[in-house]
This record gives sequence, structure tokens and C-alpha cells, in this order.
Amino acid sequence: MAVRKTLENAYGFDDVAIVPGALTTNPEMVAPTFTFGGRTYDIPIFASAMDAVVDPRFAVAYSKLGGIAVLNLDGLQTRYDDPDEILDEIAAASLPDSTEIIQRVYQQPVREELVAFRVEDIKRNGGIPFVASTPQNTKRFAPIAVEAGAECFVVASTVTTARHVSKSLKGLQLDELVKQISPIPVIVGNTVDYQATLELMETGVSGILVGVGPGSACTSREVLGIGIPQITATLDTALARDEYFERTGRYVPIITDGGFRTGGDVSKAICAGADAIMIGSPFAGTEEAPGRGYHWGMATPNHELPRGVRVHIGRNHTLQQLLFGPTSRTDGTENLVGALRTSMATCGAQTIREFHATRMVIAPSIKTEGKIYQMAQRTRE
Amino acid sequence: MAVRKTLENAYGFDDVAIVPGALTTNPEMVAPTFTFGGRTYDIPIFASAMDAVVDPRFAVAYSKLGGIAVLNLDGLQTRYDDPDEILDEIAAASLPDSTEIIQRVYQQPVREELVAFRVEDIKRNGGIPFVASTPQNTKRFAPIAVEAGAECFVVASTVTTARHVSKSLKGLQLDELVKQISPIPVIVGNTVDYQATLELMETGVSGILVGVGPGSACTSREVLGIGIPQITATLDTALARDEYFERTGRYVPIITDGGFRTGGDVSKAICAGADAIMIGSPFAGTEEAPGRGYHWGMATPNHELPRGVRVHIGRNHTLQQLLFGPTSRTDGTENLVGALRTSMATCGAQTIREFHATRMVIAPSIKTEGKIYQMAQRTRE
Amino acid sequence: MAVRKTLENAYGFDDVAIVPGALTTNPEMVAPTFTFGGRTYDIPIFASAMDAVVDPRFAVAYSKLGGIAVLNLDGLQTRYDDPDEILDEIAAASLPDSTEIIQRVYQQPVREELVAFRVEDIKRNGGIPFVASTPQNTKRFAPIAVEAGAECFVVASTVTTARHVSKSLKGLQLDELVKQISPIPVIVGNTVDYQATLELMETGVSGILVGVGPGSACTSREVLGIGIPQITATLDTALARDEYFERTGRYVPIITDGGFRTGGDVSKAICAGADAIMIGSPFAGTEEAPGRGYHWGMATPNHELPRGVRVHIGRNHTLQQLLFGPTSRTDGTENLVGALRTSMATCGAQTIREFHATRMVIAPSIKTEGKIYQMAQRTRE
Amino acid sequence: MAVRKTLENAYGFDDVAIVPGALTTNPEMVAPTFTFGGRTYDIPIFASAMDAVVDPRFAVAYSKLGGIAVLNLDGLQTRYDDPDEILDEIAAASLPDSTEIIQRVYQQPVREELVAFRVEDIKRNGGIPFVASTPQNTKRFAPIAVEAGAECFVVASTVTTARHVSKSLKGLQLDELVKQISPIPVIVGNTVDYQATLELMETGVSGILVGVGPGSACTSREVLGIGIPQITATLDTALARDEYFERTGRYVPIITDGGFRTGGDVSKAICAGADAIMIGSPFAGTEEAPGRGYHWGMATPNHELPRGVRVHIGRNHTLQQLLFGPTSRTDGTENLVGALRTSMATCGAQTIREFHATRMVIAPSIKTEGKIYQMAQRTRE
Repeated sequence: MAVRKTLENAYGFDDVAIVPGALTTNPEMVAPTFTFGGRTYDIPIFASAMDAVVDPRFAVAYSKLGGIAVLNLDGLQTRYDDPDEILDEIAAASLPDSTEIIQRVYQQPVREELVAFRVEDIKRNGGIPFVASTPQNTKRFAPIAVEAGAECFVVASTVTTARHVSKSLKGLQLDELVKQISPIPVIVGNTVDYQATLELMETGVSGILVGVGPGSACTSREVLGIGIPQITATLDTALARDEYFERTGRYVPIITDGGFRTGGDVSKAICAGADAIMIGSPFAGTEEAPGRGYHWGMATPNHELPRGVRVHIGRNHTLQQLLFGPTSRTDGTENLVGALRTSMATCGAQTIREFHATRMVIAPSIKTEGKIYQMAQRTRE
Repeated sequence: MAVRKTLENAYGFDDVAIVPGALTTNPEMVAPTFTFGGRTYDIPIFASAMDAVVDPRFAVAYSKLGGIAVLNLDGLQTRYDDPDEILDEIAAASLPDSTEIIQRVYQQPVREELVAFRVEDIKRNGGIPFVASTPQNTKRFAPIAVEAGAECFVVASTVTTARHVSKSLKGLQLDELVKQISPIPVIVGNTVDYQATLELMETGVSGILVGVGPGSACTSREVLGIGIPQITATLDTALARDEYFERTGRYVPIITDGGFRTGGDVSKAICAGADAIMIGSPFAGTEEAPGRGYHWGMATPNHELPRGVRVHIGRNHTLQQLLFGPTSRTDGTENLVGALRTSMATCGAQTIREFHATRMVIAPSIKTEGKIYQMAQRTRE
Repeated sequence: MAVRKTLENAYGFDDVAIVPGALTTNPEMVAPTFTFGGRTYDIPIFASAMDAVVDPRFAVAYSKLGGIAVLNLDGLQTRYDDPDEILDEIAAASLPDSTEIIQRVYQQPVREELVAFRVEDIKRNGGIPFVASTPQNTKRFAPIAVEAGAECFVVASTVTTARHVSKSLKGLQLDELVKQISPIPVIVGNTVDYQATLELMETGVSGILVGVGPGSACTSREVLGIGIPQITATLDTALARDEYFERTGRYVPIITDGGFRTGGDVSKAICAGADAIMIGSPFAGTEEAPGRGYHWGMATPNHELPRGVRVHIGRNHTLQQLLFGPTSRTDGTENLVGALRTSMATCGAQTIREFHATRMVIAPSIKTEGKIYQMAQRTRE
Repeated sequence: MAVRKTLENAYGFDDVAIVPGALTTNPEMVAPTFTFGGRTYDIPIFASAMDAVVDPRFAVAYSKLGGIAVLNLDGLQTRYDDPDEILDEIAAASLPDSTEIIQRVYQQPVREELVAFRVEDIKRNGGIPFVASTPQNTKRFAPIAVEAGAECFVVASTVTTARHVSKSLKGLQLDELVKQISPIPVIVGNTVDYQATLELMETGVSGILVGVGPGSACTSREVLGIGIPQITATLDTALARDEYFERTGRYVPIITDGGFRTGGDVSKAICAGADAIMIGSPFAGTEEAPGRGYHWGMATPNHELPRGVRVHIGRNHTLQQLLFGPTSRTDGTENLVGALRTSMATCGAQTIREFHATRMVIAPSIKTEGKIYQMAQRTRE
């Protein structure tokens, strides 16, 4: 029988707030750590596999602070012997020219020897190499990267599912990849869907990236109509994680990816159910980032349907300041880890798993303001 | 017994988002075609029967690309031997003068011989002539247009129903019209109502235009208080279509008409249940369009209660670019078909009917921004 | 047992839209008339009892067009022999000075002989005198006004109830007033409450003014926190009217008062259940209005807690244009009656009672825009 | 079994409106008094324990008007012999410098002899000394302040609970504090949670401060993601109060703290269930306030994670005008008590307890406007 399609409400960072309850603790009692692949990381924040965010130098610096940086194997680092030259060119371009320059420089082919070289470079300098590629290039790059010492392989595309239909009878089979590079863990994404998350977990992957269309360097929502606000995406996929864990005893962390601006956003995503988060723009604004104060997405170079433009971020702080302060900024854009710690303490949560139980409400009054602010910022450039 | 009127929520393009699920496919697996009147069209997008959008030249060009252009039989093309002269005058006017000029030039009467001449002109040059008229003029124009080779007759007014009450005992009878010009299909609109759609389908028409008050060249909502956001209108009328199909076996497509700005909007309308869509403003901005970079609605010339003004659109792209790219614009206003194809692939839908099953959510965070943006744009002119 | 207070959603003009259904008719089939006190008025729109809106000249002009103007018996017309002098002074003041000037000129006492004189003046010149006073002054003015020929007495304060508690044991008793001036009908207001409406109807009054806090010359909501959007107020009180009518057979019309800007607003209020509406600002912008292009509320002169300021409206049109066009304005602010007629026809409603059955939806996308627009307007002054 | 976290809607001042019902009264019948600790206060409004709001001079002046001022024992008054010198320095600084200056001056240690001295100073001059401190300093300061004549001790931190987990086995025990300084009443806060409120009442405290993250000099929501709009916080905690009262017979008042701008806000909080409210910014704008027209929060000096900046308020009115008028301002920012009285009278409530029974609705149309206005204000500085 015909039924009318139903529409449920979905919520993003600006739509919700965390509500302290009947328990509080001191910030020094809080440990927002993230355990993955046999290591425990002090900072539950991934740096995105984007060319303006992570290069080998950045990966090393961030590893030493206790975080996880993911190197993009499909980007400038593996297309050019000297990516800094290209990064300089992108940074020097005027805004009107920048999209075309970005489209041009990404036409250079990726070279396999550079894949190995970049991974080794990170490792040699004391960093922990996490690497990422699209599903198309994964078969080719994964063995090389693992051979070179990568500690995790991230298969990332706008939307990934366990059931991809393609003309070539066999695309990337995640279960095969997982076996092939075992025991190196595989993270896959992105998804926002409960059912898709369950099916991806069944393939044996060790982590799920959550988020489609919310990032500030991404305009999927205008261009494709696709996107789901991050709090709802996190709630839906975290439920899949919890059910999968109850059924199988295997805990596959959820990493909410994209759209973060402040420590408040970080706290909300984790409170909503994320085990860790992944951010790009805030890291692109560090002095250590390769973007020289600019940021762009991997959809920008697309010739058919570019999405997102080069955005000016500025070089606003060191990694240390961004994550731990001290800071004199009062808008939440610095000391992200300190903010998370304080937020958790205020709600009496000593671990991220405890924080998942804290109450949240829909409190949209700040939303409009936030949006207008963002818009004003963009218009300004 | 007295009851309090109930109000349900209604949603527009900016209020919703498409949610990818557990299936994906490649864009080249996707065929967003529209089958109607024995032909299959590659582009499920009608060009509106508006004088700034479709003239015979445009109709031919767009037919050749695989789309459907509808010529307005109540407009300048059938009032003037040389409509280009009038179009030049409208384009040359200052904004303050333009409403009065538009009001004046539409006082010239329509000439029946020009109706036939314009249809033949499209046909002779290889286009597929779809034509439109108001209910008032349909009886007079339909036989002429069909005789001249029209392949579809569109009966269009702000709101059309099967049960119109008028002083003259017999207004336009849709069932008689359908029989009279059979087998040429009749499309009728607009409506937004479930019950009205069912009743219109009972008259034997072959397509329904959906949408009242959402278009950018129309201010029905401010002036009349009437209007319903397009996603809800599409959901309601698509339900009527599906029920009618289950009961009768006859599939009468729903064509969502008006208010589109981006590829995201196109994807959302089709995901919500539309079989095709109809747009005006984006086409008015093509180099092929007769509007010379301007756009106005058929309610603008109304002397009693004009709604909408001449809007400056610009000549922004060729038809080819608008529909298929390539493009360096990242706001979703170009490559509409490419965007639809990518959106469908991302959701694992190979046909429009499959796309109707994809999940959508209410995700209003982008709405305010969009509205403010539109307002800023309008204020600027 | 303790219970948590519940909050229901309330909606205003900008939150809703009228939805055409399965029936349409022609505008010339529509008669939006209002029958009251033995007369039938062609225009179901009251002009507010405000000093910038109605003076005797305006009342006469508007009566002749088919409408109802209400003269304020507590304002300048009954305090000064030559109110035009005072109106000139208010119009000439700078915005910063205007509140204090308004506070000063309203300190002059009301004179009973002027009450009679103004009523007779309206009557003598062919107008239909409706008059209004606060509850405090009603006992004193009602007999005088009725004696002088008033056809309706309106008892108006911000909020009126049948159960007013005051120090003086006996305040105004509405049932006594109704008997005293019978058969001259009494209208009372304002209210927004279902129960209050029922109780007011029980006193025998012939009409109810609905609306607290929505008007543009009123800031009750910021100052007092009080106010209810007009669509919800109309739905609630119209339900009381319908129940009272079913129970008693007496039909007491609901007149929605305040907050109107466009023909769309008028249509929405009537569709929501109003039998007539009352407006101030749009009339204050006519050439016939005494406000000289300015508008202020009766709460402005309050020394303790002034609410609202003098607002510049402009002299934008004649009464004829405002109500019936023709117009070249496309924002809905002119031809209010034509818009209502077209709106009703589009929904197949030939009478206001039929229009009450038309469907409405919550469609808030236009709201923000409207609000920002209003704010921008205010800021500008 | 795994469950999806649920999100309920939360509402702030700008989201709701008070709805008059079937009863009204005259303002002079209304007594919005607050009874606490054996005294009855004419003004149910606390002045916040913030350095820009309350110093001994202000406390005395406000006590004499009938209100309650709370002196901050952790601020400048107890760190410096001559706090006026420091207040001058803060007021003289440029905005960019102000955060650092504020961070610096709060590094000076608090001196116990100044705690006693400030309390005695207030008492000697006829004021009623209410004092506040953080939980950390309470053990040390409470006996000194009580000894010096304080009439109430307020234990205040961003979020307080009865079950605080800390490394030191025993933090502040509220029940012990209550016994220790009995019969001097203890007020504790802040909280927003039903369960936390019940548990705090069980400790024997005499009042609860309600509000986390809504204040204008506070950015907890951006920085920490934490905050709950004040109407929902008040509804939730007032329910706990009412249940506790029914069960125990002890009535522990709820004092809603933070985020107030207008008389409308005051009326809404009290209508929602508050027995009294606490405000900072509006008092900071009085001529009597120590802030010299500026305002900042106690989180601003935080070196790790400062929240909020010095905000320019201006010296807009005397205390008398702010609370009782007369005023020519029509935006609700003056005559707060007059507005509350009028609002209560309009709803037929003679006491605050009666006002708790008045109906409220969600009426968000004014929200966006308010937010944009606030944002515009902030941007301006």
C-alpha cells in the first residue's frame, strides 16, 4: 500500500546543548582518552586527511602531543616531490583564481614511491602514521603503506557502504581488505546511517567515520541536497555501535568527522556518542599546518561538480594552544581539550563512555546567531 | 461539534536533507530519465512556460539536449509578430518602470494564427513542442496547437481543481479536453493537495504540476497568504499518485514546479516523490533564454493585484553548463543533472523511482542562512 | 500533586500558509462581507480606535467605502477643540522628542461635550459612528455616545475579562453595560483566551476583539513578556465562538485585532477563524488618516511604562488603493480586499464562513525573512 | 539493551510568551514580594555577586530600595584595599587589552580581613549583607562572613551538585555548612536539573540558584557546549521544589539567575516558576554599579579557558529608574518591577505563587529578531 514518506527531525551542533545533572567532578579527575589499535591516545581528536591540514611534519608534531593525524595518500604529498611549492602557489593565488589552480594541480598523477616515502618519513621522525585513501585507490596503496609502516588505513569517500553497486563486478571489498592488511586496523567512512554502520562493522573494520555534508569546506548540502546534521548522525551510528557491541562483544569506535568549530562542538559530539572526532578547519589554522592559513576540501578539485572553495582561515595559533591553551580567546576556538575536560567534569563524567550518558537538549536559540555569524564570516572574505 | 482547526508542519527545500543509506552506486549507473507521452527524456526537468524562459529558439535548443520546454501561449510570443522587440524593451527598462511596462505590453490581444505559427516553428526546427495556456484560453488554443503539431498541452493556472465553480455554468471541463485532443497528453496544474490531485487524475490527465506560491518570481504568499513549501506539496501529491496507480494501474507523473535554485533542490524534490520538475529562474539565466538576463512571472502584468516584479538574473551560463557543467561554481547553481546523478548514486538509486525510497530528514539549520542570503540578494537589486 | 507547566506552540501570520484544496471559484463569486448590528459591511476590516488612524473625517470616508472605523473617545479628538494642531505638533517632532511630546499632550483631560460632538460630526456627514473607550471611562462615555448616535460601543483595553478584580468593589460590569445601551451592540476586547472568550460572550456582548501583543505599534511582548501570536489566538477564540454558537444559537463574531501588514495576513486571520479583522498601521499610512504619515499606540503616552514609539509609516496610498487597488506594488501591502477575495476564490470559498474550513499549514520558512525585514525597517528610522 | 539518546526541546526567554486568561486585576492589587530568611523583600530580584555589579555602596543603596545585593567574596573587593583603583583601570583599558588586564588583577590573593571588613561596611551603612563565594573558598570565608554579620551565604559555581567527586576525599559538604552557620540561610547554585535540585534541597539549603550558560557575560555554551535555556531550567527545577514542598512541607525558593535583558524576561521567568531572579548586566548599567559602565564575568579571568569578555553596557539609568521608572524607553529595559506588576495584573495574579499558574506558550517568532539584535550589539563593540 502506498505510504507517505515520513521526515524526522535532525540536529546539528548549534541545535543542542549539554545539560549538567546531579553529579560533578574536578577537571583533573577527567581522562578523555581514546584507545585504538593497541595504543591509548590522550587526545580523542583525529586531524583530517586533507592537504591543508596534514603533511608529514604536522603528523609528527601532532603525534608527539598525543593526537592522531591522518595523511591523505591521494593528495599533493604523493603527487609531487616538493609539495611545498604547490602549497605556496595555492596560498598565493587570488580567491577567484584559486578554484582553477586547485583543479589543475590535482591532475598530476599519484606516484606509488611517494606513498611509501611519506609514510616512512612520518615514522622515521617519531610520528604514528595513519593514512587515508579513496576506495578506488585503496587496493593499490594499502599494501604499500602498510609495508612502509602505516599503523592504520582509512578508506574514505563522501559516502561509503558495504554494498556498493558498480559496473566492474568487484569494487573494493572491505572484508578482504581487512584480512589482507591485518592486524593493521581499517577505518572506513563516511556514513551517517544506522543500517550502513551495522553492515560496515560486519566487514571487520575497526572504526567508522561519521558525517556527510556538515563540514565548513564542503557544500554537499547545497550542491547535492545531501547531508545530515552531526548530532543526529552521531546518535544514529552510536546506537548501531552499541547494539553491535552487545551482540558481538567487539567495540568499534565511532569517529564523528566534520563541521566542528569550537570546544563546545567537540563536547557535544562526544556527549552524543562519538568515541573520538575528526576535524580539519581548526587544524588548518595552526602554524604547523601545511595550508599556510588556507583550507580546501578534496571535492574542490572536481572538474564536473566542484564543491567548496578555498577558504581563508589564518594562522591563528600553535597546535599546543589550539588543544591545551592557554588562551585569551573566549569564543571556544582554542583549548579544545581543556574545554572537553571541563565540560565532562561539569557533568561528572570521568571517561568518554561515562560522558555518553549525559543528558542533552534541543536548544536552538543560539543556532540562528551561529549561522548568521558564520555567514557573515564567509561573506567577509 | 465545534473543532479547533489543526495545523500541520510543512517543509520546503531549505528545511530538509537527503540521507544516504546502506547502498551506494557509481554515477554512471544512474539514469534519471523521465518517460512521458511515448518518449523518454534524458533530463527530468521542464522549462517553465514563462516569457523570459521559453521562446521557440530556446525550445529547440533544449529539446536537442534531451529536455522539455513549454511555450506559453498567453504571452508575448502569441501577441506580437516580433516579440524580441518587446523583450528588448522590458530588458532596457529601469526597475521602477518595469512593472508598468510589463503591465502595458500584455494588454495586446493574443492572435490565434501566432499560436499555430510558434508551434510549427519549434517543430520545423527539430524541437518537441509542449505548449501551455490558462484554463480560460484552453478551449480556444488547444485545437489550434494540436493541429499545428503540439505534443502536449499544459493547462496552467495558480491553482487548478477538477471542481471549479464559476458563474458561467460550464467552465473548462478537463475530461472533455482530454478526450478532444487525445492522444495528445494533457498536463494540468498547479495543485498542492492530495484530494485535488486524485480528482484531477480521475479526469484522465497525464501529468500534474505541483506547487503553489514557492517560486522566486512570485509573491503569492505575501499577497494572498497562500502557498505550501514544495517538499510537503510533493509528498502529499506523490501519495495521491501512488494510491491512484495502485487502484487503477495508470501512472500519472508528478512534476514539482517552482522555487528551485540549486542542484540540491532538484535532488530533494525528486527524492521527495517528484517524477520530474519544472524550473524557471535558472533557465532564465541561460544565454539561450529570451529574457535577456531578466525574469518575471505571469502574475506581474496583473493590474489589480500584481505579484512579483522583474528580477535581474544575469546571463550566467549556457544551457549545457547549467545542466551538465563543467563548472567552477561551487554553490550548486550549475550542473544540475550532474548533481542529481551524483546525489542518486550516493544513495544507491539507479532510477528516479528508486530514489523515491531514499530517506530524508528535517534539518533546518541551513534554512535561515539560505533565507537571509536570498533576502540580501533581493534587497541588493 | 505537583505538575510541570506545559508549553504549547503558538503561531503568528508569518508561521502559517493557506493551502488550496480540491475546489476553486472565480473572485467575482466571492463576497467577504461582515454582518453586524443589523447592517452588512462590504469590507470585513475595522479601522482601529487609534488617534493616528481614525478621526471623524476618516470615519466618514471609510464608512462610505463600506468599512467600519472606530473613533477613540479617550484620545486627542475628545481632549482638544482642534486636534489637528496637536497632530501637526506630533508629526513635526524629531523622533527622540516624540515620546515626551506624546506623553505631554495626552495629559489634557477628556471633555464630555467633545465626545458627543465627534459622534454627531461623523453621523452628520454620513458616516457610521463606532466608538471606543477604556473600561474606566466606559460608564461615563457610553450613554453620551449612544445618545449622540453611536451605532456600536467598543470597550477596549490591553486585556479584558469578565472577571476583573479591582479595589473598588464594582468596576465595569459588562452585562449591565450591555443592558443599559441596548439595542446598541457592545464589542469588547482584547482577549486571546478560549475561556475568557466564553465568559465574555456570556455577558451578552456582540463582538470580541482578539489579540494581545502582536501589533507593530506595541511592544507588550518585550516589556511585559505578554503576547500570543495572532493565528493561535484566533484559532482558540474562534473555537469558543463556535461552541457558544452551538450551545446558545447566538453567533458572536471574532474580530482579530493587530499585527497585520499584508493582504496575506488578512487572508490568514480570516481563514483561521476571524469574522472580521481590525488594523491600524496600514490605515495610518493612507492619505485620509489623521496621523500625517506617523503612527503610535495608546500605550505610548504611559508615563510609568511606555510601550511602543512613534513610527514613521509614510502617506503611501489612498484608502481606495489600500483596499481595492489598482496597485503596482507587489508586496501585498495594497489591495487588501482584492487579495482576500482572490485568496478565497483560490480556495473555493464564497463566504467568510466557508473560508473558515480551508486548510492551513505551519510553514515557517518565510518567518525569519519577515522578521529581519521588520527589524531592518525599525532600525532604519 | 542499547537505546538511542533522546533529545527534548528546551526553551529560553525569547522562545515563550505569557498568555492572559479569564481573570485580570489592577496593578495596585499586585504584590510581587519575596520572603526569605525571615524578611520580606519588595523586589524579587537579586543583584549578582559580580564585581561590576555589587560593591558595598551598591549593596546599601539596593537594600534600601527593597532588593537583595550579593557581594562577591572572591573578587576585587576582598583582594584590594582600594578596589576602585582597579575598577578604574579595567574601565580605562581598550577592549583588546581588557581580558589580559582582568586576568592579571585577579591573581592578587584574597585577604580574610577584607572579607570581614566589607560585610561590616554594608551592615554599618544600613544594607543587608548577602555574600557569595565559590565552593573552594566557602569553608574559609563562611564563618568569617557570618561572624561579621552576613545574613545569607551563597555558594556559587558554574554547576553545583550535592555529589561532587574530587581527589581530596572530602570537598565542601553542604549539609555540614548549613549546620555550621545555622540559622544563617545558605543559597547554593547553579543548577538546571530536576534531580540535582532535589538532592541539593535534601542538604538543608534555603535557596537554589538556577541557570547554566545563559548569561550575556558568559560564553559557556560556545566554549563548553553546556547550557540550558532559562525557561526550561526554571520549569524543571520548580517542579523539584514543588514536589519537595509537598513531601516535606519546607518551601525552598528557586532563584533564576542569568540571561535577563527586559521586564518581559523577568515576568517570564517568574511566571515559569521562579520565586525570585538574579540579574547582573542590567544592574551593571546603573549609575550606582561599580563597573563604570562595563561588565565581565568571573570566568573571564580564567587563564586556561576564559569565557566571556568585558562588555560595554553604559551607565544608562539610576537603580530607581531601572526598577521603578519613570522611563521614556519603550524596549522593556527600564521599570522592571513596574513591568512585572503590570504583567501579573494583566494575568490576574496578585502574588508570585498565583503567577506560577498562568499559561505560557512557545511563540518563537520574536526570537530570531532578539538574537540578531543581541548579536548586532556585541558586534558593534
